[in-house]
Amino acid sequence: MSAARGFVPTSTGRPVRAVLFDTFGTVVDWRTGIASAVAEFAECHRLKIDPATFADRWRSRYQPSMERIRSGERPYVPLDALHRENLDVALTDSGIEVEQIDGRRLDVLALAWRRLPAWPDSRPGISALRRELVVGPLSNANTSLLVSLSKFAGLEWDVVLGSDVTQSYKPAPAAYRGVVSLLELDPSEVMLVAAHNDDLAAAQGVGMATGFVRRPTEHGPGQDIDLEPTGDWDVSAQDIEDLARQLHVP
Amino acid sequence: MSAARGFVPTSTGRPVRAVLFDTFGTVVDWRTGIASAVAEFAECHRLKIDPATFADRWRSRYQPSMERIRSGERPYVPLDALHRENLDVALTDSGIEVEQIDGRRLDVLALAWRRLPAWPDSRPGISALRRELVVGPLSNANTSLLVSLSKFAGLEWDVVLGSDVTQSYKPAPAAYRGVVSLLELDPSEVMLVAAHNDDLAAAQGVGMATGFVRRPTEHGPGQDIDLEPTGDWDVSAQDIEDLARQLHVP
Repeated sequence: MSAARGFVPTSTGRPVRAVLFDTFGTVVDWRTGIASAVAEFAECHRLKIDPATFADRWRSRYQPSMERIRSGERPYVPLDALHRENLDVALTDSGIEVEQIDGRRLDVLALAWRRLPAWPDSRPGISALRRELVVGPLSNANTSLLVSLSKFAGLEWDVVLGSDVTQSYKPAPAAYRGVVSLLELDPSEVMLVAAHNDDLAAAQGVGMATGFVRRPTEHGPGQDIDLEPTGDWDVSAQDIEDLARQLHVP
Repeated sequence: MSAARGFVPTSTGRPVRAVLFDTFGTVVDWRTGIASAVAEFAECHRLKIDPATFADRWRSRYQPSMERIRSGERPYVPLDALHRENLDVALTDSGIEVEQIDGRRLDVLALAWRRLPAWPDSRPGISALRRELVVGPLSNANTSLLVSLSKFAGLEWDVVLGSDVTQSYKPAPAAYRGVVSLLELDPSEVMLVAAHNDDLAAAQGVGMATGFVRRPTEHGPGQDIDLEPTGDWDVSAQDIEDLARQLHVP
């Protein structure tokens, strides 16, 4: 790996060689992207849905659906499949009869999570970091979803290892350890960057370095979580370009 | 994935959506890179070694060392570790007493396989393909080796999945199937590009599309294998830029 010197977190004492990014919310603006896809779908099918509310409702099924897998109640299935199942639930909860809609149309809508816009600072910030460090996503998305999403959003990585590689979902320790292990680095040499304090806490728990970035509108105008760093993270940044500057990458 | 239309191999009938590359020999010039590292090492340690001959000797242990793993005689170990073991054998076979050399120096030399030059057409050819298709290595190298090598050689991929992800070495079918499966594509939608007919035969055996590129000096001036395509491959190209043109990617 490159960068034998560079940013050294005081909490870990070793230089960071790789920076891995939580993806939904941290790198891409899922709420805007999903609301846009839902608006188009609703218009086409003449459904009365508020797109942003529906995006929140769909996303609200995200953690519960993964929790069944993390707990061992259910074997691993890729996130694309959970998105498809959760779409049915969100539609039903919105008073829409799922059976009235062509399932293939719903299959396509479920893949809207592969077509989300990057936050404006994501591409330049990640490109800057990539000049000196290894960069990649560390996401609950499956590999194929990450590849499609990255091409759509113009994100360029050195390595793309999805949750289907480790067969585990964050914040399970195996999700972090599996990717760090494939990079053949010590956890302290790998920084997780996330807009979510709970994700950073789990990464810190396995010995990784941590970087918080603010995404105060990830959940819309009324967001009341993750507005500030709540843990002792190595870096806290306004956005990914600011993070690159704080890691001394120009 | 992008590119719903595009190049359709007559042998498979489905458009190619991803192009995966054998790496050593096909994308990078291992013999020149290893000979250069060996020359520097020999000078430093005042060893009488012909660098190119030594590179060939080191490489000649490559297939036998993987064969023990493919056959099940030995559990999977990463290619970096095999390179390190094979270095000892190649030194001994060259009449050098391995015990006289600091093992840490040999550890560093073994990582010379992470610092190899790309053939001149590799970067522009892969970049062109990447504009319309998913590109990645499909190599016997472990993920970390591929990440380091790609950064060194300036190769940019959409996905990097090493042999440690599939825990198998080509030409075992699992090595191809594992990566295709993580891309969630049909094997016929994925083309293996290689300068080696046996690699292409194995890929064709699992239903992948195939592209041969000529690397007539991979093994030096006296090369007598893989000078021509010997199978019914979907494409046969002079180099990777030519391959991109034949896939109708400008």
